[in-house]
Amino acid sequence: MIELGKKARAAGRKLAHATPYEKEEALLLIAQSLLDCKDEIFQANQIDLAAGKEAWLSPALLDRLTLNQSRLEGIVSDLRNVAALPDPVGEMFDAKTLPNGLKIHKQRVPLGVLGVIYEARPNVTIDVAGLALKTGNAAILRGGSETIHTNRALVGAIHQTLANTQLPVDAIQFVDDPDRERVLELLQMDEYVDIVIPRGGVGLHEFCRKNSRIPVITGGIGICHLFVDETANQEAALEVLRNAKIQRPTVCNALDTALVHRSIAPEFLPRLVNMLEKDGVTFKADEETLAILPSDKYKSVSPTEPGDFDVEWLSLTLGIKVVNNLDEAIAHISEHSTGHSDGILTQDKDNVERFVREVDSAAVYVNASTRFTDGGQFGLGAEVAISTQRLHARGPMGLQELTTYKWVVIGENHIRS
Amino acid sequence: MIELGKKARAAGRKLAHATPYEKEEALLLIAQSLLDCKDEIFQANQIDLAAGKEAWLSPALLDRLTLNQSRLEGIVSDLRNVAALPDPVGEMFDAKTLPNGLKIHKQRVPLGVLGVIYEARPNVTIDVAGLALKTGNAAILRGGSETIHTNRALVGAIHQTLANTQLPVDAIQFVDDPDRERVLELLQMDEYVDIVIPRGGVGLHEFCRKNSRIPVITGGIGICHLFVDETANQEAALEVLRNAKIQRPTVCNALDTALVHRSIAPEFLPRLVNMLEKDGVTFKADEETLAILPSDKYKSVSPTEPGDFDVEWLSLTLGIKVVNNLDEAIAHISEHSTGHSDGILTQDKDNVERFVREVDSAAVYVNASTRFTDGGQFGLGAEVAISTQRLHARGPMGLQELTTYKWVVIGENHIRS
Repeated sequence: MIELGKKARAAGRKLAHATPYEKEEALLLIAQSLLDCKDEIFQANQIDLAAGKEAWLSPALLDRLTLNQSRLEGIVSDLRNVAALPDPVGEMFDAKTLPNGLKIHKQRVPLGVLGVIYEARPNVTIDVAGLALKTGNAAILRGGSETIHTNRALVGAIHQTLANTQLPVDAIQFVDDPDRERVLELLQMDEYVDIVIPRGGVGLHEFCRKNSRIPVITGGIGICHLFVDETANQEAALEVLRNAKIQRPTVCNALDTALVHRSIAPEFLPRLVNMLEKDGVTFKADEETLAILPSDKYKSVSPTEPGDFDVEWLSLTLGIKVVNNLDEAIAHISEHSTGHSDGILTQDKDNVERFVREVDSAAVYVNASTRFTDGGQFGLGAEVAISTQRLHARGPMGLQELTTYKWVVIGENHIRS
Repeated sequence: MIELGKKARAAGRKLAHATPYEKEEALLLIAQSLLDCKDEIFQANQIDLAAGKEAWLSPALLDRLTLNQSRLEGIVSDLRNVAALPDPVGEMFDAKTLPNGLKIHKQRVPLGVLGVIYEARPNVTIDVAGLALKTGNAAILRGGSETIHTNRALVGAIHQTLANTQLPVDAIQFVDDPDRERVLELLQMDEYVDIVIPRGGVGLHEFCRKNSRIPVITGGIGICHLFVDETANQEAALEVLRNAKIQRPTVCNALDTALVHRSIAPEFLPRLVNMLEKDGVTFKADEETLAILPSDKYKSVSPTEPGDFDVEWLSLTLGIKVVNNLDEAIAHISEHSTGHSDGILTQDKDNVERFVREVDSAAVYVNASTRFTDGGQFGLGAEVAISTQRLHARGPMGLQELTTYKWVVIGENHIRS
């Protein structure tokens, strides 16, 4: 692993000075080589799938690790899009001349070496390699053991291509060993890795946080709330809640809990439940909600159990709670939110202002679905992760968030007095 | 410790919404109360000093922990300066309207709770408390055991003052227990602390990095280089090197190693040594330098021992090495620099360009002394730390670097399609 780290560090230093053209060109060549090598890639994927079936992996997991023509085309198309994005490296900003005449500015530079630890999806291999190369970063990839043959084939195609470009082949390092011990070693290599990006469930994030000597971007876990205020446009609110809950229930920015103002609850809640029930949603309701929607009459509604408001459902389940006012809504969010995406539906300007000021989530919404928290939707062009921690970057992270800066100071033999 | 963390977290949530006026007013009141309480503070300091003498602390350390009238006035003046700085919290930036009509911007918010671990200097207590309050952050302070009485008196004055303001008293928490075990506990409290800022030597930084579950701002360790290129204005270069080495040799941005281009070494090195010798500088020279400046003739010059180029001297010692060209200079810096402050002295524009592009330190200098790397000098108004790590902030960190941002998304009942 140390050898991998050294190679990545050396390659990162070289890659940092690649030109925008060299990087764009390399990504386009990799995209083409993935199509050229598709037979080898699909064969490797078949080996992983066969082993997965042997190991009784769940159908959902088997689906996730499957690579077919249309998925490969999607990966290639994403890579071409990343190639075409503006290159953030080298950008100068915050330029000023100090009173003593020193000229000073910040200049964007790559972070260095990314350590990316992920689970079954083989698309992450290409996705991350593309984002890393585009931003002048080397990367050490550690994918799930279930996709090791597929990942090996994908990285093989990358290495073959890089060998024909100006970029260092060693820029993309692959941990070709399924032993979990390697992950622990990676997390200790602070001399060679500048940032750890876990892509996976709560367990993986927690493991990285506990064991890493390297800064970890925690994210992707969203217990998301929408508060329906008493002045909300109820017709519109129903549509927004529906979108936030069912448009893609398995992702982190999907709605987990609806908070409803007491004064509209008797009118609004039955409409909400009648609508979402048809979409297959089931509800976890607090006592006050149950008083309005008794379980014996509303079959999809059941009482919350302790801890239910701290669950990221990732499914067609929705928590519902009646609150007395904005204060209670904010207090509930402050206690239960993971700081991902939370919003208010209201026509009251004062409440908008207070909600935006007092709710401290990565994305705070007013009259919109939480489903927009996404690098593509926010206009970043690409997304590395959605950060719910507070340092370096918050919310969707795009190319710029894979860079840092250095200060450049130009003098005329200035000395400090 | 958990209790401290809970109090700080709750206070931080309240403090985040304090107005700029409330924060400025509170800092000015604290400044006044330090002067009003000076008798108690000096008495407490006498206890620490007496204990320090008893414990045979070095004169340098005793000096560092001494608080007298003029030092207190300095602390008060710094605090008033911080009070007057612009408040970064609430600032909106990167505003845009997305194609679908969603209005989106970033808004600056406090980081939350700072954990600050420092050594003997009692001024850090007021310094950090002031910077934290100004930026809406709560702070947990853990000062050195040698200054515990002084720190207790200082924090007492802060608490008394805060009780008469709109700001929460709990915003400044003080670890009133010299046991090192408390530091370890603090580093594990990732639920209550958002960032750890160690202020002290290499050992403290290393300890925090190894043991922390919270992101640590590593910094303040500078092995700094200046490369004197063959086209450098030698007269000016001598003055710049002298300033970088002797203006304040005990600090992190002081010069540690001079790299001199071979073609000018025979002429430049004797001048450099003759000049700096008079200032009491002694030299650690590589073989080529020794060939020009034999130790028997130049008494202040001795051969380097292994590892000497990896020492932050913090004293009147200077490493000297002759290099063949810019490549060798950059390679030496890349191997030995701590990424703090490194510069080139030259009149060659191509070499300026290459040096700035290829040297990846927090501050890269052209024709200027490294001594400028400092929040005050860079126009930030204040300085929390000088970061030599790559995430979140690099180089001098001012008020803005104690904040993060949230995304605010304003829609008209937008849903994602």
